[in-house]
Amino acid sequence: MIVRDLHTAKNTERRVDSEGWNSVRLLLAGDNMGFSFHITTIYAGGELQFHYKNHFESVYCISGEGSIEDLATGEVHEIRPGVMYALNEHDKHILRGKTEMVMACVFNPPVTGNEVHRADGSYASADEHQQAAAG
Amino acid sequence: MIVRDLHTAKNTERRVDSEGWNSVRLLLAGDNMGFSFHITTIYAGGELQFHYKNHFESVYCISGEGSIEDLATGEVHEIRPGVMYALNEHDKHILRGKTEMVMACVFNPPVTGNEVHRADGSYASADEHQQAAAG
Repeated sequence: MIVRDLHTAKNTERRVDSEGWNSVRLLLAGDNMGFSFHITTIYAGGELQFHYKNHFESVYCISGEGSIEDLATGEVHEIRPGVMYALNEHDKHILRGKTEMVMACVFNPPVTGNEVHRADGSYASADEHQQAAAG
Repeated sequence: MIVRDLHTAKNTERRVDSEGWNSVRLLLAGDNMGFSFHITTIYAGGELQFHYKNHFESVYCISGEGSIEDLATGEVHEIRPGVMYALNEHDKHILRGKTEMVMACVFNPPVTGNEVHRADGSYASADEHQQAAAG
């Protein structure tokens, strides 16, 4: 059994900081659960374009308010506590934080722990990541 | 993109009620994400023994307080907001709700939607489930 606490994990290398957001990765590929689990904070006023070409992701809003725009259809969905979205088609999207939003995120395949978003808004696949790490 | 809201989903067949808990299954096997995602409420005073022999599960505490006892080691871990536990060894455990606890749960393989806990505290595997459904 693995037990981890956000309040201590956020002061370790499990926390990744980036422009407009941070993410604390409570489960990673090395935990062998078949998915990774992150608590991600989107800052108020943040406007973030992501495109996970190599991952499925689900996001559940724990607190805060904002929206997600589906760039394939132009549709905008409101985000508030209790709303979940799932990128089952590797959907290219823009996330907007009206207030700070705290989200529970699941990635399949699991994130390895060292990914940062690339210019195209994606994470490398594990294979690409290994090549990059090796290169 | 799939978008679902706990506040409407809890009034549909996505909600499963059982002794001491209920669970709203926001993502199921049929969504083809490779995992399922549930918001589960453990009632105050609940004492629940589970043993997911066929699934990995991670559980993140959104609100409330309680504990989890690892029946293999006897160890008891406090649960409060921000604490996550992951049953990476199909750990047999007892969950105790000191107050009502709201938890974000991820299952791999994904739950199909019709499982109830069996006498041994497990869910059937998808194969067994299909056999049972067919039988």
